[in-house]
Amino acid sequence: MSGALAQGFFASRWVECPEHVTQDEGGLPGGFRAANASAGIKPGRAVDLGLLVCDAPDPVSAARFTRSGVLAPPVLITRDETDVNGLRAVVANSGNANAATGLAGMEVARLMQRATAGALGIGAASVGVASTGVIGVPLPTAGLEDGIAAAATSLHADGADAFSDAIMTTDAFHKRATLTVALPSGTVRLSAQAKGAGMIEPAFATMLCFVQTDAELAPETAELMLGVCVKRSFDRISVDGQLSTNDTVILMCSGTSGVSVAPESEDELRFGEALDALLRMLAIMIVRDGEGAKRIGRVVVRGGGQEVVERCARAVANSPLVKTALHGADPNWGRIAQAVGAALTGTAPLALDIAIEGIAVCAGGVAVAHDEDALRAAAAGMEIEYEVGLDAARVGGIESAETEVLFSDLSHEYVTINAEYTT
Amino acid sequence: MSGALAQGFFASRWVECPEHVTQDEGGLPGGFRAANASAGIKPGRAVDLGLLVCDAPDPVSAARFTRSGVLAPPVLITRDETDVNGLRAVVANSGNANAATGLAGMEVARLMQRATAGALGIGAASVGVASTGVIGVPLPTAGLEDGIAAAATSLHADGADAFSDAIMTTDAFHKRATLTVALPSGTVRLSAQAKGAGMIEPAFATMLCFVQTDAELAPETAELMLGVCVKRSFDRISVDGQLSTNDTVILMCSGTSGVSVAPESEDELRFGEALDALLRMLAIMIVRDGEGAKRIGRVVVRGGGQEVVERCARAVANSPLVKTALHGADPNWGRIAQAVGAALTGTAPLALDIAIEGIAVCAGGVAVAHDEDALRAAAAGMEIEYEVGLDAARVGGIESAETEVLFSDLSHEYVTINAEYTT
Repeated sequence: MSGALAQGFFASRWVECPEHVTQDEGGLPGGFRAANASAGIKPGRAVDLGLLVCDAPDPVSAARFTRSGVLAPPVLITRDETDVNGLRAVVANSGNANAATGLAGMEVARLMQRATAGALGIGAASVGVASTGVIGVPLPTAGLEDGIAAAATSLHADGADAFSDAIMTTDAFHKRATLTVALPSGTVRLSAQAKGAGMIEPAFATMLCFVQTDAELAPETAELMLGVCVKRSFDRISVDGQLSTNDTVILMCSGTSGVSVAPESEDELRFGEALDALLRMLAIMIVRDGEGAKRIGRVVVRGGGQEVVERCARAVANSPLVKTALHGADPNWGRIAQAVGAALTGTAPLALDIAIEGIAVCAGGVAVAHDEDALRAAAAGMEIEYEVGLDAARVGGIESAETEVLFSDLSHEYVTINAEYTT
Repeated sequence: MSGALAQGFFASRWVECPEHVTQDEGGLPGGFRAANASAGIKPGRAVDLGLLVCDAPDPVSAARFTRSGVLAPPVLITRDETDVNGLRAVVANSGNANAATGLAGMEVARLMQRATAGALGIGAASVGVASTGVIGVPLPTAGLEDGIAAAATSLHADGADAFSDAIMTTDAFHKRATLTVALPSGTVRLSAQAKGAGMIEPAFATMLCFVQTDAELAPETAELMLGVCVKRSFDRISVDGQLSTNDTVILMCSGTSGVSVAPESEDELRFGEALDALLRMLAIMIVRDGEGAKRIGRVVVRGGGQEVVERCARAVANSPLVKTALHGADPNWGRIAQAVGAALTGTAPLALDIAIEGIAVCAGGVAVAHDEDALRAAAAGMEIEYEVGLDAARVGGIESAETEVLFSDLSHEYVTINAEYTT
């Protein structure tokens, strides 16, 4: 994995770096500062609290949250008790999700919010809260206010890495980048820090991801951009098919570059391309860092209605048989046929087409002769692409939609991580 | 596992042996003979073909099949090209599922059917066909007719074990039993042979299971009994959430005991209890033998409509996070809350109740104090029970339904079996 990452941030054939985008050395765009601290949530005074602040006078923000029926208090507080389109700060912790913690957990999330507001001299409704870690255990509060105060006094413009460190749990590597984006109206910067490795199958939002830009965006533009890009990135990945209670993505725009991204402008198009590439690459990094993951897959399903292709793609991506075959570099396409068949009960006979790395292995539901050695060699790569074609007429669609899901394999290490540790 | 099995067939607290039922020494009820052979499907002349014959003049049968959209030719042939309520013989093979094999696969299934009919001197429409093994590989036919002929010449009344041997794939132990059932009208015998360890989440039928009785049942009674008992057994289990392309359950009734099981009689009730216990225990044995399984779980969900409790129970049973925690004897109920929340998106806040082995750990969505040591000790058993209570009002139901799913854990061995071998 580190070898692939050494190639630079855009180290996947499934994301292209747009021509007007360059990766820069890191850090936050103008108008932002960040820091971390230990708040005594993780054992051994480990770094477990991150603070991110926008100093601009009139910041704009947008957010997306998990749709789980079990929403963690920090999600409820940020969604319902903040000015979510004008956040000035975010306080985030790892080591404890503050989920399934009831009214006491709501008070803990409010305490984090108030302590941050107090330390920064801003209103509590300007502070978003995010938590990640174990579910169902009360978040320890003894060191919380001191930790927040300590972070507030050490905020600095190059604090992106410190903030990123503070939100990691089972992550094996950092997921962060800073991009320089050349727009027709001027140059802006875009940075993001994400975390996530397990309990990953976001629905409309995901894990934790914080995105900052010095571009000036209207709240509606920020909402639209974030919504579209999240749908094309974190919404399209799965490590283990498990929607979290705490997924949160927050985009904050300081506007300090003086470059305004107007609706339906070329600036908006270009900015959107950059944000899209950034979030897609971060999403792929989460899949790559899927607990214990070695190889990652991309399944593309075509030929049914939107709901049907979505259901089939998820069924393939979350099949433990497909995921173990991916892990073992085994091009066992029978398991893909099985997973699609299971997702489409009652539609037999299903005239499936299946290709692995562009090699057709099944056409019209029947095995087709192919070069076994070439297939085995292709299946031994680090990124494997599966294409599934459905017979639209058979699956009740007049539409012919297409979708993709990016997914991790299932390895011994996933079992070790999740059987031997309470996460 | 073998320790538990040494206690006798009904070695689970989740199935009771009815008072009028006793386990006998094995073998087939009157009117049946069976045998096995090698048909050259598995390597090394391993036993891979089983033949089961009912010699009664007017046998009655019933069957249930997988609902996968990718139905294997043997399923299609048995469902569509036999007298499914009057089968006289079943030919079954392991080592190859004859699935995703198209029209050529249909011809292979018909060849198996015709060769069996020829060897036995009966009509082809009286012969059911079942296959299990790898998907998408043509079933080798060179040794098929010889294998069937060899099996036909070695049929005998104590051939149940031989037949059972022939249908095993990744199974680590046999799943078979013979019961003596005392009915008001007389004594009958009931035997069954099942296989299954991976690709297991049946929908309305399952894996392979063959059931024989010398009781006399009308076709409608056989259909009804099998349908009800399959719904309460194989329909309620999951090893890996993966519906197969080949699941088949066939009940055959020779009637040679002279004991007739009349509709709505006390005989029917008692026979149903015996069949129910038999199939539930076989289903639990399949879960126990779930590829690499160590512990098994039973999740009971109450308090929503039928569709809601079903969805939640499946979500818990198929969550790799719950399954790895079960494997690690970790009573990590936060993962149960997460899985239920993910199954019920958009319903937050969800007032979940969760108990593990009768110990309440979450009430109204909030952690409750409990004896941690007692919980850890309880979670270290071999059969773990999880109870989930939903707030019916919150999940849109006026009903308060209840369901259960029995499931395997997720272990290193599952990954090894499925990553290192093409199954």
